[in-house]
Amino acid sequence: MNNKIRWLKEKIEMQNMQGIIISNPKNIKYLTGIDAEGVLLITRKENFFLTDARYTEYVQSVLTINDGIIVNDIRNVNQDDYENFFMFCENVGFEENYVTYATYKRFLERYKIHNLEETENMIEKQRMIKDEEEIALVTKACELTDKCFKHICDYIKVGKTEKEIAFEIETFFKKNGADDLAFETIVASGKNSSKPHAVPSDKVIEAGDPITIDMGCIYKGYCSDMTRTIFARYVPIEVQRVYDLVLKNQNQTLTEMKDGANIRMLSRMVENDFKINGYDLVHSLGHGVGLDIHEIPFISSNNDNTLKANMIVTNEPGIYIPGKFGVRIEDTVLITKSGCITLTKSDKNYIVVDTK
Amino acid sequence: MNNKIRWLKEKIEMQNMQGIIISNPKNIKYLTGIDAEGVLLITRKENFFLTDARYTEYVQSVLTINDGIIVNDIRNVNQDDYENFFMFCENVGFEENYVTYATYKRFLERYKIHNLEETENMIEKQRMIKDEEEIALVTKACELTDKCFKHICDYIKVGKTEKEIAFEIETFFKKNGADDLAFETIVASGKNSSKPHAVPSDKVIEAGDPITIDMGCIYKGYCSDMTRTIFARYVPIEVQRVYDLVLKNQNQTLTEMKDGANIRMLSRMVENDFKINGYDLVHSLGHGVGLDIHEIPFISSNNDNTLKANMIVTNEPGIYIPGKFGVRIEDTVLITKSGCITLTKSDKNYIVVDTK
Repeated sequence: MNNKIRWLKEKIEMQNMQGIIISNPKNIKYLTGIDAEGVLLITRKENFFLTDARYTEYVQSVLTINDGIIVNDIRNVNQDDYENFFMFCENVGFEENYVTYATYKRFLERYKIHNLEETENMIEKQRMIKDEEEIALVTKACELTDKCFKHICDYIKVGKTEKEIAFEIETFFKKNGADDLAFETIVASGKNSSKPHAVPSDKVIEAGDPITIDMGCIYKGYCSDMTRTIFARYVPIEVQRVYDLVLKNQNQTLTEMKDGANIRMLSRMVENDFKINGYDLVHSLGHGVGLDIHEIPFISSNNDNTLKANMIVTNEPGIYIPGKFGVRIEDTVLITKSGCITLTKSDKNYIVVDTK
Repeated sequence: MNNKIRWLKEKIEMQNMQGIIISNPKNIKYLTGIDAEGVLLITRKENFFLTDARYTEYVQSVLTINDGIIVNDIRNVNQDDYENFFMFCENVGFEENYVTYATYKRFLERYKIHNLEETENMIEKQRMIKDEEEIALVTKACELTDKCFKHICDYIKVGKTEKEIAFEIETFFKKNGADDLAFETIVASGKNSSKPHAVPSDKVIEAGDPITIDMGCIYKGYCSDMTRTIFARYVPIEVQRVYDLVLKNQNQTLTEMKDGANIRMLSRMVENDFKINGYDLVHSLGHGVGLDIHEIPFISSNNDNTLKANMIVTNEPGIYIPGKFGVRIEDTVLITKSGCITLTKSDKNYIVVDTK
């Protein structure tokens, strides 16, 4: 049995569960390395991965004897087998935040489980703390993001459209070793930058435009996330004050982010400084990054937990002035005992492109 | 109120429900045209779309007075409002195949609903029958797919990798008006073509390779899906017999597809002919296509329903010989009263590329 599954078995035992059904593919990948459709059953004695013929060969190639997982083709699993998996189990866990109501009912019927128990993001909570290999993969995804950003700063010219820029980012990522985009790239220029979640449009870049670029890739399953607001040809004076305020708060947050820091306080600090200056923080200050691009912990004033060493989170304050412009500056950050390490390293001072 | 919402209100009334909560974004798009995060509430008197500040402006721009939908920013909806939406309702429907168990429980608590009732894909079943506008959009997505296929046949040369070809397909789609890919493109050459769900690899195309290309795009929300197995430089003799058998069955299925055709029989016909020749149909013969790339009806021998006019489905028989090669030929097809119309029109005879 590998360490992660051993951890899980101990965890569910402590909560008086004798087994657990894991359906969320990200949780399955985390526990086993398997990246395929199927369901992972942790039972009293043995562990099973139920999949179909398309994946059995691949799954066998990923698993080692050490994983201790029996792979079954669902075509060979009959009703008796289903009922045997959790026989004599009082309580069996399931992922109530992933499984649909219809699947929940199907589980009850198929496995004949006495009590299906909610597990309250048990595995997602464990996933918050990254191990060395996970940190290395996110770091690599962040390096690729920095390289891509450098490339795109050379690429952007007045007259290019937001869509063209977004597509160039995608092309660079895919040609340079990323599995995929971590999310749909945001390229929002001029007035469009005032919308936090703008979709790239056919609008062309004009001189004086602030351009907010929110980008990230997936490398071997792990995500990166970075935002910069840059400028075409010159930095308009009215944007500078807002930019400086956002950057000051982004840097201030970095100095406060470390093991033990209270998440609510981090967020409040930015909210208060924005308010004093007449602005609001309209979205959360950040979120966890890993196998999912948005995962716990969410960095907002609703969250009274503390940061822990080896969490990876974003730090992304932003100010948006409706109908005018917006500025957001975001890094992906590794929390350590004594502080934090910024994994995305692109410049955060005014970046002016197409200067000729 | 628009026609689709009027239909839905009549439908739920007939099933003794006084309201319904719609969460699946594809169903919301189908009913309202809205493509944004939020939840649609059909209540006794009025209809509401609950969303957040990011989307309110956009949503207002999509809706007309005719839709009769009140847009609420969730920040302005308090617990009393939630409890008022379905006050005096005995039964309120929800989408048990979309909503998680945790959300189901949250609905119960938040809306204080007496009985949340399963709706058994009520809206998805309605979505099977396409209206004129939907047919026009799928047709357009299919035309783009044919154009892209023509382009890619010129592009493919011995020495190009599967990944390069897949990326060229994506580039073509995005530069020619598609919103996005409908699914991750499959480009599987040589031995890789023996895996029905192969992922594009760094393998280079070699002379004599069969190359299975499964591709589709999204145009204004609607999908296309087409597969061809083509050949680099020449058609190996051992592949020809299999190709001819797949094509014969694909054409035979087209002649049988029409309003009233039994889905099980369509599938059995192909399964039997494959079996007589020593092969198996290892996946289903097809699936519905629309707002989702895979939607009901699924064309397989498990499905005893009949095709209906204005359904759009795929017809995709395939044969896969492990460790050797595979052939799949797929069209997107519109069912009519008297037959069917193939919406993807690319050639299905042997296509040989890089002939010089």
